Parts: sequence; structure tokens; C-alpha cells
Amino acid sequence: QFLFLLVAVVSVGFVSIVFVLRWVLYFKEGLAWDGGPAEFNWHPVLIVTGFVFIQGIAILVYRLPWTWKCSKLMMKLIHAGLNILAFVFAAISVVAVFDFHNAADIPNMYSLHSWVGLAAVILYGLQIALGLCVYLVPITPGSLRAAFMPVHVYSGLLIFTSVIATALMGITEKLIFGLKNPKYKDSPPEATFVNVLGVLIMLFGALVVRIATC
Amino acid sequence: QFLFLLVAVVSVGFVSIVFVLRWVLYFKEGLAWDGGPAEFNWHPVLIVTGFVFIQGIAILVYRLPWTWKCSKLMMKLIHAGLNILAFVFAAISVVAVFDFHNAADIPNMYSLHSWVGLAAVILYGLQIALGLCVYLVPITPGSLRAAFMPVHVYSGLLIFTSVIATALMGITEKLIFGLKNPKYKDSPPEATFVNVLGVLIMLFGALVVRIATC
Ligand code: HEM
Ligand code: HEM
Ligand code: HEM
Ligand code: HEM
Ligand SMILES: O=C1O[C@H]([C@@H](O)CO)C(O)=C1O
Repeated sequence: QFLFLLVAVVSVGFVSIVFVLRWVLYFKEGLAWDGGPAEFNWHPVLIVTGFVFIQGIAILVYRLPWTWKCSKLMMKLIHAGLNILAFVFAAISVVAVFDFHNAADIPNMYSLHSWVGLAAVILYGLQIALGLCVYLVPITPGSLRAAFMPVHVYSGLLIFTSVIATALMGITEKLIFGLKNPKYKDSPPEATFVNVLGVLIMLFGALVVRIATC
Repeated sequence: QFLFLLVAVVSVGFVSIVFVLRWVLYFKEGLAWDGGPAEFNWHPVLIVTGFVFIQGIAILVYRLPWTWKCSKLMMKLIHAGLNILAFVFAAISVVAVFDFHNAADIPNMYSLHSWVGLAAVILYGLQIALGLCVYLVPITPGSLRAAFMPVHVYSGLLIFTSVIATALMGITEKLIFGLKNPKYKDSPPEATFVNVLGVLIMLFGALVVRIATC
């Protein structure tokens, strides 16, 4: 049953990545780094592959059977490495929207989505810095490591959940802004397809938290 | 420190209710049941007071010091009663939007917000029904009650988190649809004010989950 959950979380994650790629490549303008809408498209792609999928796998590293033969240090390096990789994806993704907004003279940081999103990226960076200091610097005493663990797990899962919520707001915004004729309200195929992507991202988040807390 | 968290969660909850009331009464059309925008406004008001605040307090009932002198049965009745009250608020809130949409010929159930939201209301009803059968029907064996507890807590917190995420999507939609000149992008006072409401709702959710899991 535990193995079933692992297979489910990885499958839902993969399907989400396929969905976001089909969204930007088939329904939207594709990918480019030219200040136009195709540069914006890197934003959802890097968020779903990096900040959602890679972060989710990073959180689950200690629960994956194939890591059980690794040393504890090795597992920590994989956990930290994947989290750092996810952070790089998230940072580039945010640069892509800012660049697109500046090129098109759209204001920055006006939305609830951008407030919660940027806060999540910054707190994620802090979580990495603290994690490295407490769990990888060899001189940190074991008592401090143990005392800090509940905080590390709670703040890690809180940031992860906020990222999922931010992604759902971002999808909502983009469907409203991007669909004009027919509109989002008129349920064109893109609207239904991307709603399903939103449901998949939620499901992925629920499975990650489920596995990490049982 | 635990008492501090309790004071914080109740305060943030109250301020959220004040914010949503100021939003609809001062910035928007007020409240009415007339098929117009003032009927829509019951939607966020009932969601924030009922589905967010009352549900949050219901989840925390077993942790509140003033319930510790109550019998276990009494606590269960308060927990179940508040959850049923929150469900009634959520149901009326959803009726308000449907009624508004039908009166204005806006399609129903097209958005990711509406999909996740309606699913949350239905699952919440199921959670109540199952909770009553397992924990209030006297003939249910204690072994079943204990075995079901982790499922009850996980599904309860998952629904609660989904409600918070749905509320953030709803706020995002309403700010985009409702602000035309100046637009959401231009950060008029209403936009900033309601973004803060969104942050408060997130904070309330984070505190409830924190208290319920420690
Ligand atoms: C979950 C992680 C995400 C984070 C941390 C994040 C972060 C951000 C930030 C910081 C901005 C502001 C950029 C600026 O002001 O110039 C922004 C804008 C935007 N994002 Fe995201 N985003 C996320 C996910 C998504 C997703 C999945 C979409 C779906 C397409 C999306 C769509 C948008 C849109 C349409 C904007 C422009 C409108 C606005 O500023 O709110 N975002 N995002
Ligand atoms: C933003 C990045 C990070 C997030 C979101 C995060 C999140 C988490 C979560 C949710 C857990 C609980 C996993 C479980 O119980 O299955 C965990 C465990 C842990 N994390 Fe992190 N973490 C991050 C960065 C780091 C870093 C940089 C280190 C440094 C090595 C680290 C060290 C650990 C350790 C030692 C554990 C305990 C593993 C165990 O013995 O169960 N984390 N982390
Ligand atoms: C968190 C609990 C919430 C639930 C369960 C929920 C549920 C729903 C449902 C089922 C609909 C579809 C109505 C229809 O299709 O006729 C809807 C629509 C809507 N809701 Fe919510 N809602 C919630 C919170 C909010 C909040 C806090 C706002 C902020 C104002 C909001 C704004 C909207 C808007 C603008 C619509 C119309 C556009 C659409 O159908 O997506 N919702 N909501
Ligand atoms: C949708 C409605 C409901 C939700 C969201 C919900 C959620 C929760 C949560 C999150 C907890 C853990 C609280 C904590 O540890 O502090 C809990 C505990 C509990 N719930 Fe519910 N619940 C619901 C309905 C019900 C109903 C109708 C009953 C029937 C009496 C019930 C009986 C219980 C019991 C007996 C506990 C265990 C208390 C303990 O000994 O720690 N729940 N519920
Ligand atoms: O360095 C570590 O800290 C935690 C634990 O000791 C704290 O509870 C853990 O699992 C490590 O490998």
C-alpha cells in the first residue's frame, strides 16, 4: 500500500509535467527567451517541473526504498541537492515573469499570487540555508539537530503547501488573462485541460504530504 | 507558547472576518439577496466566517483549554456541531453564487476554483457523515474508532487546506473580474486591502494546522 502511494505520486507528477508542456507548446506560444509571451511560458514550466515536482521528490527522498542502501550522509546530500535544484528552477521561473512584465510594461508584484509566491521562494531559500547549517555542518550538536527537526518538517511542508496554493492561483490568473475569445467562462478545450492540470498538482501535493507524514 | 498560538489564531481569524466585511460593505455593493452583485457578496462573507473560521475553530476544539473540563462526549458534540454549522454556511454561500450566476446568465462550474471548491464542500459533507457514524453512533467498536482516526485527521486537514487554497483562487478571480478602472494590475486600495485578506486567511490556515499537529 505504501509502494502504491509512491507509484501514484511519481505518476501524477509525471503527468503534470506532460500537461504543463502540452499547455505551453500546443495551446500557447511555446518556449523562448525573447521578452514575449513565450518567455512567460517558462514560468509555469519551471514551476511545475522544479518547484512542485523536484521539491516533492526531495521531500520524499528519505522515504524512497532505493535510498535505503545509501548512507545517511548520502541521503542528506540528495535531499539538499534536489532542494537546491528546485530553488534554481523557481528563481529562473520568477526571473522569466519579471522580464516579461518589464518588456511589456506590466506592473510587478501587484497580485496576491505574486506576494505569496515570492514569499515562498524567499522562505525556501532560508529553509535551505538553515537546513545546511543545522544538518550538514559537522560541528552542529545532535541535541540542536533533534530539537530543530519538528520546525524543519513543519516549515518545509508549509512552504510546499503554499507553493501548491500559489500554482493554483497562477493557473487561475493565466486562464483569465490568456483566454479572450472564447473566454475562460465559455470552457474552451484549453480551460478544461488546464483545470485538470490544477487538479493533478493538488493531488500531487496531497500525496507528498500524505507520504511524508505517515 | 501554546496559549500564544491560540490567541494568535483567534485574532487572525477575527481580523479576517472584519476584512471580508469591510471588503463587501465598503469597497463593494454590500449584502442583499436579489440576484445581483450584492447577493454574490454573501459568497466570500459566508466562506470566510463559516467555511474558514468556524471550521478552523471546530478543528481546534479538542485543544482549547476551556473544553478540558467538558466530558469527551460534550467535546465531540461541539466539534460535530461547529462542523455542521460551517457546512451550512458553505452550502448557502455556494447557493448564493449559483443564484447570482443564473440571474446574470454566467455559466456554472467552468473554473478550477469552482471544481476544487465544490469538491471540498462535498467531501466535507462526507467527512461529517463518516465522523458521526464512527465517533457518535454508540455501537461502533473502539478498535474501528482508533483505526479510523489517522484517516479522519488526514482527510480533515486536507479538506481544510483545500478550502484555504480555494479561497485564495476565489479572491484572485474576484479582484480580476471586479476591478476594471483602475485594474487589479494598477493596485488600487481595494486590491492591496484584499491581498492582505488573502495573506491573513493563509496565516489562519497555517496556525490551525500547526496547533492541530503538535
Ligand atoms: C507555485 C509557484 C509560483 C511562484 C513562486 C510564482 C511566482 C510569481 C511571481 C513572484 C510573480 C510576479 C512577477 C512580477 O510581478 O513581475 C508571478 C506572476 C505570475 N504568475 Fe506565477 N508563480 C508560481 C506559479 C505560477 C503558475 C503555475 C502559473 C500558471 C501559469 C503562474 C502564473 C503567473 C501569472 C499569470 C503571473 C502574472 C500576473 C501576476 O503578477 O500575478 N504562476 N508569479
Ligand atoms: C527548502 C528546502 C527543504 C525542504 C522543503 C525540506 C523539507 C523536509 C521535510 C518535509 C522533511 C521530512 C521528510 C520526511 O519525514 O519524510 C525533511 C527532513 C530532513 N531534512 Fe529537509 N528540507 C529542506 C532542506 C534541507 C537541507 C538543505 C538539509 C541539509 C542536509 C535538510 C536536512 C534534513 C534532514 C536531516 C531531515 C531528516 C531526515 C530523517 O531522518 O527523517 N533539509 N526535510
Ligand atoms: C473557500 C471556499 C470556497 C468555495 C467552496 C467556493 C465555491 C465556489 C463554487 C462552487 C463556485 C461556482 C459557482 C457557479 O459555478 O455558479 C464559485 C464561484 C466563484 N467564487 Fe467561490 N468558493 C470559495 C471561496 C471564494 C472566495 C473567498 C471568493 C472571493 C471573493 C470566491 C469567489 C468566487 C467567484 C468570483 C466565483 C465566480 C467565478 C467562478 O465560477 O469561478 N470564492 N465558488
Ligand atoms: C468535516 C467535518 C470534520 C472535520 C474537518 C474534522 C477534522 C478533525 C481533525 C483535524 C481532528 C484532529 C484534531 C486535533 O488533533 O486537534 C479531528 C478529531 C476528531 N474528530 Fe473530527 N472532523 C470532522 C467531523 C467530525 C464529526 C462529525 C465527528 C463525530 C463526533 C468527529 C469526531 C472526531 C473525534 C472523536 C476526534 C478525536 C479527538 C481526540 O481525541 O483527539 N469529527 N477531527
Ligand atoms: O543530522 C540529523 O539530524 C536528524 C536527527 O538527528 C534529529 O532528530 C537526523 O535524522 C539527522 O541525520
